[in-house]
Amino acid sequence: MNFTSKVLEEAVESLASLPSIGKKSALRLALHLINDNNEKSIRISKALDKLSSEITYCKQCHSVSDDEICKICASHSRNPKVVCVVESIRDVMAIEDTGQFNGVYHVLGGIISPIEGIGPEDINIETLINRIKSGAVNELIMAISPTIEGDTTIYYINKKIEKEDVVISTIARGVSFGGELEYADELTLGRSIATRIPFNNR
Amino acid sequence: MNFTSKVLEEAVESLASLPSIGKKSALRLALHLINDNNEKSIRISKALDKLSSEITYCKQCHSVSDDEICKICASHSRNPKVVCVVESIRDVMAIEDTGQFNGVYHVLGGIISPIEGIGPEDINIETLINRIKSGAVNELIMAISPTIEGDTTIYYINKKIEKEDVVISTIARGVSFGGELEYADELTLGRSIATRIPFNNR
Repeated sequence: MNFTSKVLEEAVESLASLPSIGKKSALRLALHLINDNNEKSIRISKALDKLSSEITYCKQCHSVSDDEICKICASHSRNPKVVCVVESIRDVMAIEDTGQFNGVYHVLGGIISPIEGIGPEDINIETLINRIKSGAVNELIMAISPTIEGDTTIYYINKKIEKEDVVISTIARGVSFGGELEYADELTLGRSIATRIPFNNR
Repeated sequence: MNFTSKVLEEAVESLASLPSIGKKSALRLALHLINDNNEKSIRISKALDKLSSEITYCKQCHSVSDDEICKICASHSRNPKVVCVVESIRDVMAIEDTGQFNGVYHVLGGIISPIEGIGPEDINIETLINRIKSGAVNELIMAISPTIEGDTTIYYINKKIEKEDVVISTIARGVSFGGELEYADELTLGRSIATRIPFNNR
């Protein structure tokens, strides 16, 4: 690309460093920002500046937070005895959006994946085990993606705490609500028949 | 979306104000930036800050520029007598990328579009006419999109300067190089037959 402005070039290069934004998209974004009387660029610039300087992780659940302890962990209306274990902050937000969970979280920050060289010590498992061993947890809900890596992670955590007095469950797996059976993959459909639940239990 | 951090929320909101970036993409970008040890966010923040404070438009051709007169207009190796008229800065960059043009540009900043309420006075036509009337231009190449609005704009400019001593041309329109005839649209194919050029002229 031939830029007539170094400033524009640097803006495009920096935006293009973001995932799934190519050079052409970055250029479109930068030109949009130029045409926008600078308001948006100033706003984004300030927000990202704050993001780099002020964001921190909750010491208890490892979710992003503005303070040492996040809003959810600090809330008196949540049940700290029920901990939902998730892979990422995005999962916390997805579960919060459902409004169906009143406990607290533990963000692993990844899952065990030997292929990618991610072992148990690379993710926040030790702090989870410490939380459980301190006796602060009654129930652990594993809300981990139903993949081989996810199952490995659940199995590993399970092994580590099998002697502790804590109930462990995983989120239900099966066909999606509103989904059509014929389009469900074989594994999901097969498993959802094998793990069928009594009709009254619904 | 339920955010556990105000700082993250503001970053997501600001990124989502960009075109074609929804809230979910913005969240993905923000979390990517958090995971990236802040280097990228600082770089983007600085680049956009500069973009809002330092960018300016070339007084002559209205392209983005770091100075009063852009690199292209200021260059001694370019022919200032040949002016290529384009709709946007993106077109300048696209033509520069071809390496086939050695003149200078005039960026209209839009095209005449009565439906969108854009008239001749809303785009940089007056300064173009002044450039031509000052006698500084020998040839005008209209590199405007071949749409109704584009043709209207070309026609309008043509009318305004028909008494001036300047050669006007439009970029060639026809089937794309490497394109297959059967996939070209009827209008393009029909026009490219009507405006066929002698074989030796290629």
